[in-house]
This record gives sequence, C-alpha cells and structure tokens, in this order.
Amino acid sequence: MRYYRIPNETIRRLPVYLRGLLFLLERGRQNVSSLELAEFVGAYPWQIRKDFSYFGDFGVRGVGYDIEKLAKEIKKILKLNVVRKAALVGVGNLGSAVLAYPGFGIYGFDVAEAFDADPKKVGRKIKNVRIRNVADIQTLKKRNIKLGIIAVPRQAAQDTADKLVKAGVTGILNFSPCYITVPKKVKVITIDIAMDLARLPYYIPAK
Amino acid sequence: MRYYRIPNETIRRLPVYLRGLLFLLERGRQNVSSLELAEFVGAYPWQIRKDFSYFGDFGVRGVGYDIEKLAKEIKKILKLNVVRKAALVGVGNLGSAVLAYPGFGIYGFDVAEAFDADPKKVGRKIKNVRIRNVADIQTLKKRNIKLGIIAVPRQAAQDTADKLVKAGVTGILNFSPCYITVPKKVKVITIDIAMDLARLPYYIPAK
Repeated sequence: MRYYRIPNETIRRLPVYLRGLLFLLERGRQNVSSLELAEFVGAYPWQIRKDFSYFGDFGVRGVGYDIEKLAKEIKKILKLNVVRKAALVGVGNLGSAVLAYPGFGIYGFDVAEAFDADPKKVGRKIKNVRIRNVADIQTLKKRNIKLGIIAVPRQAAQDTADKLVKAGVTGILNFSPCYITVPKKVKVITIDIAMDLARLPYYIPAK
Repeated sequence: MRYYRIPNETIRRLPVYLRGLLFLLERGRQNVSSLELAEFVGAYPWQIRKDFSYFGDFGVRGVGYDIEKLAKEIKKILKLNVVRKAALVGVGNLGSAVLAYPGFGIYGFDVAEAFDADPKKVGRKIKNVRIRNVADIQTLKKRNIKLGIIAVPRQAAQDTADKLVKAGVTGILNFSPCYITVPKKVKVITIDIAMDLARLPYYIPAK
C-alpha cells in the first residue's frame, strides 16, 4: 500500500496516537473508540477519525479500532517498523537525560552513540553508551546512522549540525535554543521546551 | 480586542512564530514577509498568513509584517505579556536541564521554584533557585504560582500532578513518559522527546 498526501500536521499527530495505542496494548486492550483514544491522548475524536482516514479506515462501528493493527499501520507509515540507531551530540544535563530516557524504545529508537567535546566526559559510559570525542562524529558514516540529536550549547549547534550532515545524517532533532541551517535534503525538528510551556497560559484562567 | 475561536493548532504554532520574530528583532530587523518568516521557523507561508488572519492581519503588501507589533500582539493573545512564575518538580538530569535552560526568558517565564524528593538534593542551589522538599509544594498556593513542570520518574508523576493541582496549579508541562489525570479545569501538555524524534524517519530517505 502507498500513502499519498498525508498532511504534515497529521504526521505530527501520528506519534501521539501511536504512543497512546501502545500504552493501551500494554494494558491488554484490543479495541478502542476514537472517543476514548481522543480522551486518553488529549486530542479530538473528529481529528483522529480524519487523520486515520488518510491511510484507510480501520474502525468498526460499535467496536472501534483494532489497536494492534492500527499501531502496526502507523509504525509502517512513520517508517518506525525497523530499529533505528541515533547519535547524540552533547552529554550535558539534557544530553544525559536523553541517554537515560526510557521512552525511545517504544518507537524503535536506539540512541547508540554519544559524543561530547569535553575530554573529561570522553570515555565515560551512560546506559551502555560510551561517550566519544566529537572529532569522531565522521565515523557515523561507516555505521550508517542517519539520525542525530543535538544537545550542545547554542553557540556550538550550527557546527555540530554541519558535522552530522557531513557524516551522512539526514534527520536531526535539535534541542539547542537556536536555528540551524542545513541542506534541503536534511530534515530538522527543533524542540524548545520553553515553546511548549508558552502554550499553557492561554488555557489557564486569569486569576 | 477580543479573539474568537482561534483553533488549538494555531495556538500551538503561535509560540513558534513568536520565537522566530523575537530572534529577528534581536538582530535589528523591523519587517519580515510571511515567506521569509516561514523559511526561518520551518513553517508554510500560507499557514502563517492564515494563522495571523485569526486576530487581524498586520502585513503590508511589499513591506511585510511589522515584527515588533506582531510579537506584541502574539504575546497578548498567548497571555505572555506578564512575567509568569513556574515551579519545577524533579531535579534529575532533565530537571537540571530545565533549570539551566536559557530559553524561558524570551517568553516571560521565570522558573522560580524547584522541588525534589531526594533529601541530598534539598537545599542545593541551581541558577539561583534553592531546591526544596516536595512536601513544601503546597506553599505554591501562597505564592500564587499557577504553572508546574513535572520532571519526575514515571511512577511519581501522577502523585506529583495531584500535589500541584492541590496547590492551585492550573497549567502543567509534563515531561514524564506517562499519562496523568487531572481535573477538567487544569490544562496538561505532555512532552515526550521520543515522540518528536518519531516524526523524523518519515521525512528521511530510505537508504
């Protein structure tokens, strides 16, 4: 099956649904309605139905969606049906939190490499990953690692991105609070934890 | 001026635009076109024009948007035009990264309180914030702090949320990889760093 014209906004929401589905599956559930899934993950039922309609409707009236089938389909669409290794650059507080984060597994991610510029950190091991020198980023090419995570200070972010791109990385998750420039073929997603907090006041009462 | 029916998806994107506008302002820029802003923040020009149309169009043909005016308006809509204090619970790697994060200021946030359950951490100071015992979360009520950030292990997340709600918090940013239940009047935004990474493979070439 091929999927045409799935909007970017739908792609953004699919991991949210997938996460909810996998949690429900873990609890032994087999079916879920769009209403219940919506409430569980904090979305709208109509949005869920519309999003799922882009790749074929898996819902059965009165029964709901087959969780396992739907999760499998979403994984296929998001190309998460294989284990994907990722490389982290910057093992400060945030980078250490990334390495220790228990949530990557459910999406099939394995943060398998970590780099830092600080000689004192190089050689240390966090969660079975030995920290290597940033000068070795180029070796990612040989290991065919295509995903990079940037958690370095702002002023080192662009240089880190350049190094990752040179090493063949085509997808970057950027935690540095700045904008980085990459060739068109490389996809960057920038995460700004303050930006997410910035959505909250709109929803909370004035007093 | 009052704003009616701004879609949630637009509210989600406004902090993204605001961040880009403030960066441009910092560089001494006065005007920006939807095309340039789109490229800068990684959005679509048509989306930006549509989003801005919900609260009045500030663009002038051939000149673009007045950056300062637009930033001010977005801040007003998002209720970011006042300094807002937030309280962090959980000062592990991620929590420490939150406390040290330089990006909160541009949105007017001040992470003014930090709590941890570990007696060894209580009393320590990170970036001028003294870590206090989680038993003191209730004191937030007196300080009128309405925003909470949860960065505790998964198994402590629900209990932490309960404590924050009891202390009068009405907006929660949740970094714990789990779902938490709160009363309807409380808004929760859950951040899962793995979920953001999960959008990348879709966009990168198979090989």
